[in-house]
Amino acid sequence: MTMLAPGSTIGILGGGQLGRMIALAAAEIGMHIHIYAPEDGSPAFEVAGRHTRAAYDDAQALADFAGAVDVVTYEFENVPAETARLITGRAPLRPGAQALAITQDRLAEKNFVAGLGIPTAPFRAIDSLADIETALNELGWPAVLKTRRFGYDGKGQAIIREGDDPGAALAGLGHAPAILEGFVPFTREISVVAARGQDGTFLAYDLCENRHRHHILDVTSVPAVVSPQAREQALDAAWRIAAALDYVGVLAVELFVVVSEAGESVLVNEIAPRVHNSGHWTIEGARTSQFAQHVRAICGWPLGSVALTGTGATMTNLIGDDVDQWARIAAEPGAHLHLYGKREARPGRKMGHVTRVA
Amino acid sequence: MTMLAPGSTIGILGGGQLGRMIALAAAEIGMHIHIYAPEDGSPAFEVAGRHTRAAYDDAQALADFAGAVDVVTYEFENVPAETARLITGRAPLRPGAQALAITQDRLAEKNFVAGLGIPTAPFRAIDSLADIETALNELGWPAVLKTRRFGYDGKGQAIIREGDDPGAALAGLGHAPAILEGFVPFTREISVVAARGQDGTFLAYDLCENRHRHHILDVTSVPAVVSPQAREQALDAAWRIAAALDYVGVLAVELFVVVSEAGESVLVNEIAPRVHNSGHWTIEGARTSQFAQHVRAICGWPLGSVALTGTGATMTNLIGDDVDQWARIAAEPGAHLHLYGKREARPGRKMGHVTRVA
Repeated sequence: MTMLAPGSTIGILGGGQLGRMIALAAAEIGMHIHIYAPEDGSPAFEVAGRHTRAAYDDAQALADFAGAVDVVTYEFENVPAETARLITGRAPLRPGAQALAITQDRLAEKNFVAGLGIPTAPFRAIDSLADIETALNELGWPAVLKTRRFGYDGKGQAIIREGDDPGAALAGLGHAPAILEGFVPFTREISVVAARGQDGTFLAYDLCENRHRHHILDVTSVPAVVSPQAREQALDAAWRIAAALDYVGVLAVELFVVVSEAGESVLVNEIAPRVHNSGHWTIEGARTSQFAQHVRAICGWPLGSVALTGTGATMTNLIGDDVDQWARIAAEPGAHLHLYGKREARPGRKMGHVTRVA
Repeated sequence: MTMLAPGSTIGILGGGQLGRMIALAAAEIGMHIHIYAPEDGSPAFEVAGRHTRAAYDDAQALADFAGAVDVVTYEFENVPAETARLITGRAPLRPGAQALAITQDRLAEKNFVAGLGIPTAPFRAIDSLADIETALNELGWPAVLKTRRFGYDGKGQAIIREGDDPGAALAGLGHAPAILEGFVPFTREISVVAARGQDGTFLAYDLCENRHRHHILDVTSVPAVVSPQAREQALDAAWRIAAALDYVGVLAVELFVVVSEAGESVLVNEIAPRVHNSGHWTIEGARTSQFAQHVRAICGWPLGSVALTGTGATMTNLIGDDVDQWARIAAEPGAHLHLYGKREARPGRKMGHVTRVA
């Protein structure tokens, strides 16, 4: 394991708030940052010494970018496979191309998780109307149709209830390759935010409990209130996923908590191969923030402590015009306000967050 | 009091580590940053959306800079008066020009402090060899000759012991206008790092105890171990200084602790109208860092909590090739490593610091 020295350059694919917060954490230890993103005025550009504004399929720009940095990481899982391939030949890509290939396709992800013996919601691959009818007969109603690719914050999803027209649901998703997931009567949604170092060290933060509003994360509370056995299952699932991917960096595993006669247990819902919104509380709530931890991992540094700084924390997203409350939050004792420097507060847009440490 | 909204632009005069850490704190709440500094490759340039590389006497560049920002602050007290004047007409300068005028001249500063009834070391203005001989007769030996302007980290100072040639000391400082300070048999050096808001609110962090090595700050420990009465005197001095300057922002007041039959008391040594090296521990050791606090104050926001996050903290500077220890420090549990992105580790150069929270 070689530690990248301070003064090295970290390349980040993606210029949103996650890239911005990784860049801020990297600057604290004297790393240089080079952001690659296609959007003009990306929030991360402003806190980085260099940026490249180019499309993710611009082979020349990618080659130049990879040649100018010491390691490349990403803030989103939809990095095209070809982009990852172009970079991998020129600079270390951490986490790797395999993590991208698996997590950007819901079917591959579900098969991967199930293949590790980790429970998930029941699912079927859907490529046609015939598939969906067969699957509904097997899984029952209600069920959730999800596109295999490019879904986030509830986009690319449709609930199919008994009596609904499955063809309409498929058409609503543009007949994209999809999966059908059986209904899971979960009691809570939780996530494991964890890091795996280059030497295989695995450290997970306290479990996060996540509440959504309009399919977008609203509030994360830490520590999540779950049974010790559910907690063990969740941590074990995250550990096995990270190990199987030979993962380097921070990842998040979202899980459902379900209750049966045997008590609480968990099902893996989704893997995010990156820092995650449900880990934002770690900036003040943990000894090492998820952003600093990600930088440590991808630079080959030993991982930092994931201990809580208090007894817990809550993180509330500021979505769209929630951000208008900034002045009230700035005056609230104990509230840590974070804003991402986005110029326009569109509905559903993540503008910032507030952390309150208990 | 108007609160500057997120998305406003903060202009910073100076591009060193202090400007860099102010910029990082400002980015956390969605402020844009514009650094103004003459040196190519200034550490703060890399974390700022805009920078101007120009001399402090470039009237046109200063006017353009002031016109492009919503408020101007500075990371060093030697901003020329003319620079401050040029800016003041175009953008709010916080802290103001008066704080600069007083603190960049040791004689003006000592007279100002003494005029508030706050004890200092005995001092005399020195403009000639005759002055220094008279002053030595009055203050005795040893005494310290200091240039009135541009001294820092022990530069521009000479100790005169009995039998030394005062003319040689004066010549050693290039016959610059100076002051002679009587010897103070202090037991400790401490500092008050505090903030004053636009509404006059004053909040001081716990007292810092400072140890120097080769005239450069080496270690700050918090809280300083001093008597309650010395603590009260120190906080009162800082409060009176800030109020008299109608100060807005973070300032540091360095003091000597002396012991007499009446117990411990303090003398003011120096005022820094800016965030200060002895306040770096606040990044992890206090609920609001001095950098976030400074940004709040100059933006007209209510001040944040100055409470400790633990029971105290120590901050150790990494000077020159101390920085070569980065890998060991990165692996030390509980050590928070900060590096400033400086390319070359020259002797005496502040390359970074480490904070350990108790």
